[in-house]
Amino acid sequence: MSELVPSIVIVGGGFGGSAAATALRKAPARITLIDRNNYHVFQPLLYQVATATLSPGQISAPIRELLRRQVNTTVLLGEVTGLNTSEHFVLADSRDRQGVQLHYDYLILATGARHSYFGHDDFAKFAPGLKGLGDAEAIRNNVLQAFEQAEAEEDPSRHRELLTFVLVGAGPTGVEMASALAYLVRNTLRSEYRRIDPTSARIVLADAGKRVLATFSEGLSTAAAKRLESLGVEIRLGHAVERVDEDGVLIAGERINSKTVIWTAGVAPSPAGKWLAAETDHAGRVRVQSDLSIPLHPEIFVAGDTASLDQDGKPLPGVAQVAMQQGRYVGKLIRQRLLGKSPPPPFRYFDKGNMAVVGKGFAILQSGRLELSGFVAWLGWALIHLLYLGKQSLRMSVLLQWMWTFLTGSRGSRLILNANEQTPVQTTSSAASNPVSSSPAQQLVAAEK
Amino acid sequence: MSELVPSIVIVGGGFGGSAAATALRKAPARITLIDRNNYHVFQPLLYQVATATLSPGQISAPIRELLRRQVNTTVLLGEVTGLNTSEHFVLADSRDRQGVQLHYDYLILATGARHSYFGHDDFAKFAPGLKGLGDAEAIRNNVLQAFEQAEAEEDPSRHRELLTFVLVGAGPTGVEMASALAYLVRNTLRSEYRRIDPTSARIVLADAGKRVLATFSEGLSTAAAKRLESLGVEIRLGHAVERVDEDGVLIAGERINSKTVIWTAGVAPSPAGKWLAAETDHAGRVRVQSDLSIPLHPEIFVAGDTASLDQDGKPLPGVAQVAMQQGRYVGKLIRQRLLGKSPPPPFRYFDKGNMAVVGKGFAILQSGRLELSGFVAWLGWALIHLLYLGKQSLRMSVLLQWMWTFLTGSRGSRLILNANEQTPVQTTSSAASNPVSSSPAQQLVAAEK
Repeated sequence: MSELVPSIVIVGGGFGGSAAATALRKAPARITLIDRNNYHVFQPLLYQVATATLSPGQISAPIRELLRRQVNTTVLLGEVTGLNTSEHFVLADSRDRQGVQLHYDYLILATGARHSYFGHDDFAKFAPGLKGLGDAEAIRNNVLQAFEQAEAEEDPSRHRELLTFVLVGAGPTGVEMASALAYLVRNTLRSEYRRIDPTSARIVLADAGKRVLATFSEGLSTAAAKRLESLGVEIRLGHAVERVDEDGVLIAGERINSKTVIWTAGVAPSPAGKWLAAETDHAGRVRVQSDLSIPLHPEIFVAGDTASLDQDGKPLPGVAQVAMQQGRYVGKLIRQRLLGKSPPPPFRYFDKGNMAVVGKGFAILQSGRLELSGFVAWLGWALIHLLYLGKQSLRMSVLLQWMWTFLTGSRGSRLILNANEQTPVQTTSSAASNPVSSSPAQQLVAAEK
Repeated sequence: MSELVPSIVIVGGGFGGSAAATALRKAPARITLIDRNNYHVFQPLLYQVATATLSPGQISAPIRELLRRQVNTTVLLGEVTGLNTSEHFVLADSRDRQGVQLHYDYLILATGARHSYFGHDDFAKFAPGLKGLGDAEAIRNNVLQAFEQAEAEEDPSRHRELLTFVLVGAGPTGVEMASALAYLVRNTLRSEYRRIDPTSARIVLADAGKRVLATFSEGLSTAAAKRLESLGVEIRLGHAVERVDEDGVLIAGERINSKTVIWTAGVAPSPAGKWLAAETDHAGRVRVQSDLSIPLHPEIFVAGDTASLDQDGKPLPGVAQVAMQQGRYVGKLIRQRLLGKSPPPPFRYFDKGNMAVVGKGFAILQSGRLELSGFVAWLGWALIHLLYLGKQSLRMSVLLQWMWTFLTGSRGSRLILNANEQTPVQTTSSAASNPVSSSPAQQLVAAEK
């Protein structure tokens, strides 16, 4: 390759960025994909890491490995910090170097999204969200730790708040997390504690909207809600969460004491809009043109959760399917342009359908006019998720784990990693002020009957 | 159970503590097992987590799950901080409470070991050891990050130190890590980088002794050394490491520049000796009597790496087999005593044999007069390790991963977790002082040919 070969920089190795890179496989260009992580993560199964069924390694693969046969592509680990659109370079920091410049002739921004706390950023501290592997491991640690703390706690009044889990947001992530938690306490954990009854755990799923899984049809939404209730999940609709603090949440004036609040609502895009100083929608996503480029910059494209595009008068949803199709489209468009061929027609999203799983052996599925709920939909869900898991070895490993968990209730990865390195959430004042106290209440073993 | 039932506290859920708990399955007692982690880890395979073959979840299982059917046993997550041997209680901290007291009638200490830097504790910062899952993940991060940094680095003089890995200590851990690293660079990584050649990585295995795997026969030791050399591992024997710092190591006056030094030598026992104020051997292990109790305290037992016991004039080694047999012995002894039966004869270790794996498809095995090296020994190694992996589901999952890695070279868990949260090891001063510099040397992409 000579210096004259155009360079393409792709920022982000999620669904959008990976699809763009793959579509540029045979393009006459030098491609650089930069991501802050060395792995691509299969986000639709992230909740299964957070609920201890799967290991992080089972839903992710090194980006480098996925693109290893694509010799025109270099993969870099680094964090993009800004752009210079007039001089055409991306600024990035890596572990040992800062302010590295990546020159581009074409730029694809596929930087994904984080959660939005709707202006209440102070909630973040008490209610972590679920977007990356780090989040999933942190939530898993918190959930498992709550049971451990309850088992070590003799004051039954504290068991209640330790064993209350609140999920804020009843979209697919909230529903899938709530049902997986319900399954965790009622099956996997049920016989393993001596002082607490894990099945007494309270799982609350709250949403400001009128129904769960509001993007699905009313019938499916009702079916999912019924199923959640049969699993023991408490659904609270119609009221936004007013407050989240270290003791729990406040919903419609009512306080729910909980040591584990998980944020499954709201999506905020990455700072790409700010880097570009481009027009954004109300949620901060970059307004793109029908070919996914931005106005005045035919060489800059935005794909996936970072982009805002209307189709048939409605904004496209921030889901994996949209990101993949947009990434592929941009890759193809750039290749055509490099080869001097005519560009493809404007981007159009083809909705293959949506699904959400609600506990063991139950899912809802909506595709065009087809609506399904129950076991068959769940089989479809499992099949499609296995097919989309990029690597053959992951497919086998996840399939086996699912079969095992389905049959035995045993989970694949119930570890509290770095249990001792965590900041204590709260310290019981009496114990802290009197570390060698011998009050009977602290005699964990002797106090047992 | 009534208050009169005696209470047994087991500190540590490793091989020794778990074996003791299991042996007390039917004892008329209230047993409490406390560990700082919620999981039992299968240490012999830890190096496979450190070299990205297996996930942490594949070599560990929740202690709670292993003991879930054992209704006389409570499992607690907490860190033991001290003992009161006159009033018979253990002091422990948990995440939210400190100074909790656990009363015991019988106490079993099986708290394992950490690495010893032979008085050079300042080495620890630059040369992490491998004892727990956290260590294994940290080493995995460091190793993978070194390749990422090298790929992002255009100055070839820095490639050399980034791609040099030094292992200090040529016992089983050092040999297994070195050969697994050699296999990682020569197979898994070889085609995935564009600027560096991973197969050019230099792997140095250093030991102060005269041969690798000194606990094996001379013939097996030579076979292992030959095999290591054929894998490209550089062996340096006969000189202790004089210095470890951020730039590498100093051995016999020669400096080896390396960004990744791993400590695989030296074992230091847990602070149990201090808690007990008991007699210890030169390595700090608690001297136990022939029934594994300590002098003057027939109710306190020490098992595994924390205990020091001679057999036939030689100290027992700190290996999993010894810990398991000692744990089982102590459990049985206490049960007999509770049932008013005669105690078992003094503890005697039965050595079933030892093995070490040296890369793909090669191991050495020594059992009594039997000595084996090569593929058959490796099959034996794989079989025995699978059998001893406590859980059925782990066995299946590890077996499949090994088969997959054997056939394709692809690893199961090549993730750099929290890549951005790590403290930068070093900052190139020019880049740091000039974060928006546009010096050609920093133009990662433009500078490529």
